[in-house]
Amino acid sequence: LAEGRLTAASRTLAGLSPVDVIDVLERLGRRDRAVLYRLLPKDVALEVFEGLDPVLQGELVHALQDDEVARLFMDLDPDDRVPLLDELPAKVAHRLLRGLPQHERDMTSAVLGYPQRSIGRRMSPEYATTSPGTTVGDTLQRIRLRLDDAETIYTVPVVDHSRRLVGVVSLRDVLRASPGDTIESVMNEPFAVLATADAELAARECADRKLLALPVTDNESRLVGILTVDDALSILEEAESEDAARSGGAEPLRRPYLATPITAVVRARVVWLLALAVGASLTVQVLGVFEETLERMVVLSLFVPLLIGTGGNTGNQAATTITRALALDDVRPRDVLRVLGREVRVGLLLGTLLGALGLAVVGLLYGTDIGLVVGLTLVAVCTLAASVGGVMPIVARKLRVDPAVFSNPFITTFIDATGLIVYFLIARAVLGI
Amino acid sequence: LAEGRLTAASRTLAGLSPVDVIDVLERLGRRDRAVLYRLLPKDVALEVFEGLDPVLQGELVHALQDDEVARLFMDLDPDDRVPLLDELPAKVAHRLLRGLPQHERDMTSAVLGYPQRSIGRRMSPEYATTSPGTTVGDTLQRIRLRLDDAETIYTVPVVDHSRRLVGVVSLRDVLRASPGDTIESVMNEPFAVLATADAELAARECADRKLLALPVTDNESRLVGILTVDDALSILEEAESEDAARSGGAEPLRRPYLATPITAVVRARVVWLLALAVGASLTVQVLGVFEETLERMVVLSLFVPLLIGTGGNTGNQAATTITRALALDDVRPRDVLRVLGREVRVGLLLGTLLGALGLAVVGLLYGTDIGLVVGLTLVAVCTLAASVGGVMPIVARKLRVDPAVFSNPFITTFIDATGLIVYFLIARAVLGI
Repeated sequence: LAEGRLTAASRTLAGLSPVDVIDVLERLGRRDRAVLYRLLPKDVALEVFEGLDPVLQGELVHALQDDEVARLFMDLDPDDRVPLLDELPAKVAHRLLRGLPQHERDMTSAVLGYPQRSIGRRMSPEYATTSPGTTVGDTLQRIRLRLDDAETIYTVPVVDHSRRLVGVVSLRDVLRASPGDTIESVMNEPFAVLATADAELAARECADRKLLALPVTDNESRLVGILTVDDALSILEEAESEDAARSGGAEPLRRPYLATPITAVVRARVVWLLALAVGASLTVQVLGVFEETLERMVVLSLFVPLLIGTGGNTGNQAATTITRALALDDVRPRDVLRVLGREVRVGLLLGTLLGALGLAVVGLLYGTDIGLVVGLTLVAVCTLAASVGGVMPIVARKLRVDPAVFSNPFITTFIDATGLIVYFLIARAVLGI
Repeated sequence: LAEGRLTAASRTLAGLSPVDVIDVLERLGRRDRAVLYRLLPKDVALEVFEGLDPVLQGELVHALQDDEVARLFMDLDPDDRVPLLDELPAKVAHRLLRGLPQHERDMTSAVLGYPQRSIGRRMSPEYATTSPGTTVGDTLQRIRLRLDDAETIYTVPVVDHSRRLVGVVSLRDVLRASPGDTIESVMNEPFAVLATADAELAARECADRKLLALPVTDNESRLVGILTVDDALSILEEAESEDAARSGGAEPLRRPYLATPITAVVRARVVWLLALAVGASLTVQVLGVFEETLERMVVLSLFVPLLIGTGGNTGNQAATTITRALALDDVRPRDVLRVLGREVRVGLLLGTLLGALGLAVVGLLYGTDIGLVVGLTLVAVCTLAASVGGVMPIVARKLRVDPAVFSNPFITTFIDATGLIVYFLIARAVLGI
């Protein structure tokens, strides 16, 4: 590509499946991606476009001609249009929406009307329905009519005359029943989520209940859309990428790593690093307070990285465990005291094990006094770190902040400063300085 | 429950859906869980059992009577039996297998024959198939016959006379075609995975391609099983819990947090902590080497936690990003030089920003010399940390180790030691000591 061999590139592309083409595009820079995309045959191009991250879709749109964009936009599913619109300048978004036929525009606007990060934004407004009184045979006919446009035909919501969700029936159940049976006799209790519910929680429900699709309703339990398991998967994947990035102390990149410009990577990381560095300046102050102690016993400074490192590790272990448990709904905010009780015990046990080892090894090499200081500090710091690390993600959740935001790097910084205070207080007490 | 009010508990349970019962059971201790489980009505009990983690299933089995266990085991799907067998003592596992009818035992043994962590272990051996020459109408009949036992009927693999996979057809396509069409005219190119392939990678393929089910074949591309999207979701969730735990420096718990005994939590964490502490003892030695420098300039020790903390944070950011990108297949092992090039630039940029700030602030408060040392160290440490953090997960993958194992805590420890060396070398050079 770099050498301008477009025909060769085009021939290579023709041999690839859409998923593989997406893989290739996601590894290229912005300009090359646009060039290569325009080489794709029409029918593949749509499928590839649908599979790209919205940010990359937005960039591609800028590189295409207006009529190409309008056609592409028309061909997208309503629920795929919305994330793309979010990435585009308001002017372009409005023009694209105006270009849609009435029916398509209505469906897209309905999805657009729900709050950011709600499942209403990610659901599909295209689904097949039936009613309790309809027969199985007629339902099969209705399903056949929606074969081309419904997001799924394998899960069919059952609604009453005012569009209220009263049941769900699977195509498997429909095929099993005899054509004369009513839907009412074969349908199941519906499980649904509110359109305003958090998208990640809704997707998690879909996954936990092993559903192929989850009906989405409004406040009056009227059906407004459907979330299919493949969309649920994408939502969970995004959420997990966010959690992973934040637990590493950075903002999520929102697009594949190799497709992200260096400056965007720096931007995603620098704010966190600065905030953490400001937090870490606490350690400078703490050490400043104890400078006199340090001057008298320089040997104490040798153990500073080891002690705060171990504290940070213990805190991270607890924070990661609880953040993940919160994401999986294994732990809920009201469990805070139970978690605290467990983590205090875990920290105490870990601290005692490490402390005994520290006492023995350091005692042997640097004298019993120093060994005692290091050992006691390990017990105290591990207990403190595990409790803070375990409770912090729950506090974050209660403050309606992403638990991952508050976790690892934040905890490390906090433990660093408090751990140093504990260390020097124990040192002063034991060594009598 | 604690007060022995079993009737009340049983009544409360009767009002809950299986998913909610699982939620409750996963929050209880081992004994209470067994008591409550035995209160469940028969039909709910099976569904609840299927939804529990294999480790918890294994514990329950010990608390139930032999004939209850045999019945339960018989009612499980073949692919659900295998993870449970892995948790049971060999004697119990053999007895249960012997108790199965021939056909069920064969299907279970087939799944058991594949290596640990392979998709062969997690696939279902119960599926509907058709052949290229069969008509659409006959295929629909064949599907109807498998309504009760096939894991899915929405994706139907197409096999030739020697069971070789030649296509895939969706129930949607079958319904769309006319009954007289042959399957050959409506089927799609199959995408399949090998039964010996890594379960996580296979599940990721299923998710990335937005498939409801993925055929699994042997080396001769003969169909041996099918992976459904809900099983793929469970596999990905486990894999992400493992990654999360390891990136926090602990072994995965393998069961819900609140259902894990304290001693098991300690065991999952202590080995890592010890290994990291041994690694961190390097820092003690490095500081020991520079003890003389420290004695002359105690002020240098004030910045130790800040500098190694910032290095650790920068390294974590890079490591988390690349670990996640590897998991999502956005980055592949052969991209190692590209990643290195990007991370060197990112680290240099971040280091320059932080270093300039450090020079200004520290220079103002502690003198230009110290400011210069801190600023230069930040540039060097950030560049080093980002490159090591970015490359380490790829090296781990090449060594066939879980990239998360080598990432955050490992990197922090490594950066701590090398960062200190860089710091003191720069200090000696700038301050002339």
